[in-house]
Amino acid sequence: MKTLEWEDNKLKLIDQRKLPDELSYVYCDNYQDVIVAIKNMTVRGAPAIGVSAAFGMALADIEGVDLDKAADEIKSARPTAVNLFWAVDRVLDSDDALAEALKMYEEDMATNRAIGKYGAEVIDDGDTILTHCNAGALACVDYGTALGVIRAARDAGKNINVICDETRPRGQGASLSVWEMQQENIPVKLIPDVASGFLMSQGKIDKVVIGADRIARGGVVNKVGSFMVALAAKHHDIPFYVAAPYSTFDNEISIYDTIIEERDGDEVRYYGGARICPEGTEVINPAFDITPKELITGIITEKGIIDPI
Amino acid sequence: MKTLEWEDNKLKLIDQRKLPDELSYVYCDNYQDVIVAIKNMTVRGAPAIGVSAAFGMALADIEGVDLDKAADEIKSARPTAVNLFWAVDRVLDSDDALAEALKMYEEDMATNRAIGKYGAEVIDDGDTILTHCNAGALACVDYGTALGVIRAARDAGKNINVICDETRPRGQGASLSVWEMQQENIPVKLIPDVASGFLMSQGKIDKVVIGADRIARGGVVNKVGSFMVALAAKHHDIPFYVAAPYSTFDNEISIYDTIIEERDGDEVRYYGGARICPEGTEVINPAFDITPKELITGIITEKGIIDPI
Repeated sequence: MKTLEWEDNKLKLIDQRKLPDELSYVYCDNYQDVIVAIKNMTVRGAPAIGVSAAFGMALADIEGVDLDKAADEIKSARPTAVNLFWAVDRVLDSDDALAEALKMYEEDMATNRAIGKYGAEVIDDGDTILTHCNAGALACVDYGTALGVIRAARDAGKNINVICDETRPRGQGASLSVWEMQQENIPVKLIPDVASGFLMSQGKIDKVVIGADRIARGGVVNKVGSFMVALAAKHHDIPFYVAAPYSTFDNEISIYDTIIEERDGDEVRYYGGARICPEGTEVINPAFDITPKELITGIITEKGIIDPI
Repeated sequence: MKTLEWEDNKLKLIDQRKLPDELSYVYCDNYQDVIVAIKNMTVRGAPAIGVSAAFGMALADIEGVDLDKAADEIKSARPTAVNLFWAVDRVLDSDDALAEALKMYEEDMATNRAIGKYGAEVIDDGDTILTHCNAGALACVDYGTALGVIRAARDAGKNINVICDETRPRGQGASLSVWEMQQENIPVKLIPDVASGFLMSQGKIDKVVIGADRIARGGVVNKVGSFMVALAAKHHDIPFYVAAPYSTFDNEISIYDTIIEERDGDEVRYYGGARICPEGTEVINPAFDITPKELITGIITEKGIIDPI
């Protein structure tokens, strides 16, 4: 099962908005469909956004659209994930858009396997691992970054228990990460977002592994809440790892210069179709936050585990 | 508008499960109705639970039920809020159950006004205050503890902005605290629970004021998530206050000996009637957590602001 695939000159995407109840697909046969799918989070997760954007460029090329124009439009789909810009620029610099996108598709899978291999080395038999949001197969082409580490540790014969937090407002932990772990028969429990600190204080979490949307000088941008989990982990001396490919790195800038996407307040006002607050309530809904490097034990990349930059 | 009232020998409760969409009432005409209302969170919030329990004892007395038996049953409704035990014991030790309950009802309102008066002194004009869960009028007979501090600061002529976090799993911040602030025309914004750390890092929160379900040696038990908010406040040198009456104190025990109630996993699995995770997902759902005293700036009581014990 792949999160995204190139099929008959179309980009086939798992519709992640329908999970866990329904495994269905969206087909993009032009680059503007890809932009919509990234914007409305049919596809989400930094590596998956990157490879989808590359196929979006390939579709633009097939359509005969000017690639510089398509590149600008695709890059504007979401502002925070650096993989999006990296992928579009890489296709733009190549001789053959589709060939480059297909290469990136293959590379993403190999990269995640390598991240998993290195990450599994720091996971101990019997560990209970907390993860936040979904940095799983569904955030990539396949296998996952943070969940790839868990898969690799399990495949190396280690008994692993996973705790997923819900990850409000969109609930990717509850709907996607829990589902992925259940598909793999890895024991998993769901908790409210703000319960992880309490569970850490009770000695019930051994390690934290999350993904990243951007790594730059001074820290890591990831799904909002990562920072508070990192603070709680530091307080309890629990190792806190970020698993991400080098395509997530932006060595040129300070992490504090990242634009943090502010998403529609209705993501907070509504949940499961029901309004949870008085009508018209004002909302602040940052999609990401910044975890400073001091709180990060290590970054698990496809070339090994490194210190934050 | 009172959260609870004694009317025609019945306990009249605002049905807090229906807010913010519907202001409706539940009437308890026997002590077992009161137990049900506390268990299913028709009434919630430590002070409101305490006074409701006192009226439950009054109802048992009117019914001619053995008060020792009724006391044991009422105390078992919820395990964590110390006010529940305090209130039941106080009625048990009195000569007239109903008179004592009515006295506690009046005292609760006076207590909250006093908490508000002392608390308002540490709130500055222009402050943006984060509160977690609902320690408002709806958690008491009227006025509130944490939200009482905000009301009193506003009534003292200070411009106050409030940020309420959602407070999963039951969403009391979104449904109750936001609603209370809107009723008072105090500017309020709603955020996802795990966004408060990011907003603190951006300088958008000046102070935190929360309530308490139990204060004992070493810290404070309050709604799950309070601990992670306190860690984030400490990291950013933001004052973190707990507002609670002396009836919440249990000087005899260590806070770490508190029983932390584990509630039904369906509170996490479902939200607004919709399932948010795969069917049958295992859940850990602690209702409360422990904030250690080192993270607390001060406890705002009806007798003044004191250090944690």
